[in-house]
Amino acid sequence: MNQLDLMKELHVPSEKKIVLLVMDGLGGLPGPAGLTELEAAATPNLDKLAAASILGLSTPIAPGITPGSGPGHLGLFGYEPLEHAIGRGVLEALGIGMSLNPRNVAIRGNFCTIDPSSGAITDRRAGRIPTSECARLVEKLSVIKKIEDVDIIIRPVKDYRFALVLEGDGLDDKLTETDPQKVGLKTLPVKALQEGSAKSARILNAWIEKAFALLKDEPKANACTLRGIAKDPGLPSYAEVYGLKACAIATYPMYKGLARLVQMDVIEGCDTIEDEVSALKANWAAYDFFFLHVKKTDSAGEDGNFDAKVTVIENVDRVLPEILALKPDVLVITGDHSTPSALKSHSWHELPLLLHANNIVVDACTSFGERACMAGGLGHIRHVDIMPLAMAHADKLTKYGA
Amino acid sequence: MNQLDLMKELHVPSEKKIVLLVMDGLGGLPGPAGLTELEAAATPNLDKLAAASILGLSTPIAPGITPGSGPGHLGLFGYEPLEHAIGRGVLEALGIGMSLNPRNVAIRGNFCTIDPSSGAITDRRAGRIPTSECARLVEKLSVIKKIEDVDIIIRPVKDYRFALVLEGDGLDDKLTETDPQKVGLKTLPVKALQEGSAKSARILNAWIEKAFALLKDEPKANACTLRGIAKDPGLPSYAEVYGLKACAIATYPMYKGLARLVQMDVIEGCDTIEDEVSALKANWAAYDFFFLHVKKTDSAGEDGNFDAKVTVIENVDRVLPEILALKPDVLVITGDHSTPSALKSHSWHELPLLLHANNIVVDACTSFGERACMAGGLGHIRHVDIMPLAMAHADKLTKYGA
Repeated sequence: MNQLDLMKELHVPSEKKIVLLVMDGLGGLPGPAGLTELEAAATPNLDKLAAASILGLSTPIAPGITPGSGPGHLGLFGYEPLEHAIGRGVLEALGIGMSLNPRNVAIRGNFCTIDPSSGAITDRRAGRIPTSECARLVEKLSVIKKIEDVDIIIRPVKDYRFALVLEGDGLDDKLTETDPQKVGLKTLPVKALQEGSAKSARILNAWIEKAFALLKDEPKANACTLRGIAKDPGLPSYAEVYGLKACAIATYPMYKGLARLVQMDVIEGCDTIEDEVSALKANWAAYDFFFLHVKKTDSAGEDGNFDAKVTVIENVDRVLPEILALKPDVLVITGDHSTPSALKSHSWHELPLLLHANNIVVDACTSFGERACMAGGLGHIRHVDIMPLAMAHADKLTKYGA
Repeated sequence: MNQLDLMKELHVPSEKKIVLLVMDGLGGLPGPAGLTELEAAATPNLDKLAAASILGLSTPIAPGITPGSGPGHLGLFGYEPLEHAIGRGVLEALGIGMSLNPRNVAIRGNFCTIDPSSGAITDRRAGRIPTSECARLVEKLSVIKKIEDVDIIIRPVKDYRFALVLEGDGLDDKLTETDPQKVGLKTLPVKALQEGSAKSARILNAWIEKAFALLKDEPKANACTLRGIAKDPGLPSYAEVYGLKACAIATYPMYKGLARLVQMDVIEGCDTIEDEVSALKANWAAYDFFFLHVKKTDSAGEDGNFDAKVTVIENVDRVLPEILALKPDVLVITGDHSTPSALKSHSWHELPLLLHANNIVVDACTSFGERACMAGGLGHIRHVDIMPLAMAHADKLTKYGA
């Protein structure tokens, strides 16, 4: 039996509340002083909590595999990331705050430059036009509102990138992309890879014809390519899998979108960690699961800014007492993946994990950091193990078998 | 998605070089002084390296499972040993330095004694004839060079054992063996277990008829049995799976053969550890992955010679600075399995693992040994996890998902 089916079968109601506090890109590597960002940060509250918790290290996907934000979070949510892929188009749409449903197909679009006579691509990124220019072009294309019975939504993303979303019945995403991957070649038509995708292919090819006609006199972005054509993966909801009434508190659209994929309620209007903690308090009575996402640990890591990442961690430490004051029955603190500032990118490294509850064997760790977690009582687990552990410690899973 | 597919999808080029140093049968059990062979050995260089590395324990196949050399190495190479079986015939042929390709079927042959009148086996090992006698008999049988369009190659192995290799089109290995497994019974004909194996069965039965005719006047080895009929498992190459230009440095034919199964280039002419280090230096510029195999840790363990195994480990320690002087970006040191001298055989025990790179969180371990590794930062992993970790630390894997 796979894990989701097991959770569906075993979950039972309880009054207990779970908080999953995700510091994006939490894991790090030693900086100049030999300590990681988390080890270097002054975190009296996290350390005090660690001393009363059980720690471990978690592998987001598999040893050596660096996750994107999508797979990293799917793992945390308990959905095997190697089985449930989220297409690029879906992430692009979620990342700018679009909501998707099973009637949607989402596509990542790139403006490009073609030679008007031959149709061959001369610049796959349309001279990296600015976002403002992208917005103007998207506005122009937004006159294409419907093809057959399918609604068309288009939104600017960044620079030469846009998101295109189809909404209608009988749409599928088993389609080829139109980007020939190099200059000198013409853009390709969308082809259906299976019978059920014929309608989507027809709609997209019709859209391309109309779009190219609208763009033909543009100096740079006189064409576009469509990539990462994908549907909402249709994940079972948190209510169905875990019986949880779940809410997501995040500042960035991407993470709200990922939470919507599993049908968490999303709290809007948070810009800072303080906003997020306020939202947690305001919604405390209404939910039994809270996904609380802190973005800036990752941003600082991506920027290669060790000190900034330390500061974000210290800010989280500062608000921790307010979270603890709510008396969550189960509090899990970890990240979706490592983003060591030394690497300026996501990485494959295992990352620190803390589980606090009143029904644990407290281990010997007295601080929260990579090396403390190496000796933690949870040992080395995988992200997909976290939700079952959280559920169990919240008395929300019954016995398997008699 | 399985691991090989994941590696194929994610591997990217980098300038970094990986060394996988395998001390065959490295893992041990405590001797009279309470220390294992590795713990008892004076290994100042390994210990110094351990203090700057991340350690762990690796399970070759699965808990409690003792691997043969084939599965042990497949795991190290990143090929799930429970999915990719290497037949005994293939190992026998590889072990004496024969090269195999997908047009080959390899068979392990045993000379035996039969009662000339009844045909019943009276000695399944032909009185354990010496290898010189085996060579003479193989010479006699080597007149059978071709049957139909299939080439026949035969080579002596050791004592009463020989290797038989068929080469031709349309050969398969889904065949029954001819050894009835006890004396008093006649040897069995080869039977095809599926339609596609009919040709191989016909060729082998024809070969048996000719061979028995040639052997009939021999006093001891007047017949033979054929076992472990197997094809090259057709593993995807290191180039395909990892994008690596890989080279194998080993002293024994078996390990060169195993490396050839995944299409590593094999450096010939090494008899000692010193030769192997020289070969490593000589080939350093030409490859980005080096499988460096030390045999004698295992041989000493199999002999039950604790002190000899300690000495081999100390010899490796002595050449370690020369390996480090090449500045491998990733250095992994482990074994294919444990061979505790206390057991005089391969065993199932987890074995010490050391990973050295510049993008690790160095753990608290300051020596390389079974008990140090129990507290290592890598925790407990499986052999198949080692290659993805080595690839990641060498910047040779891109992100999974967006």
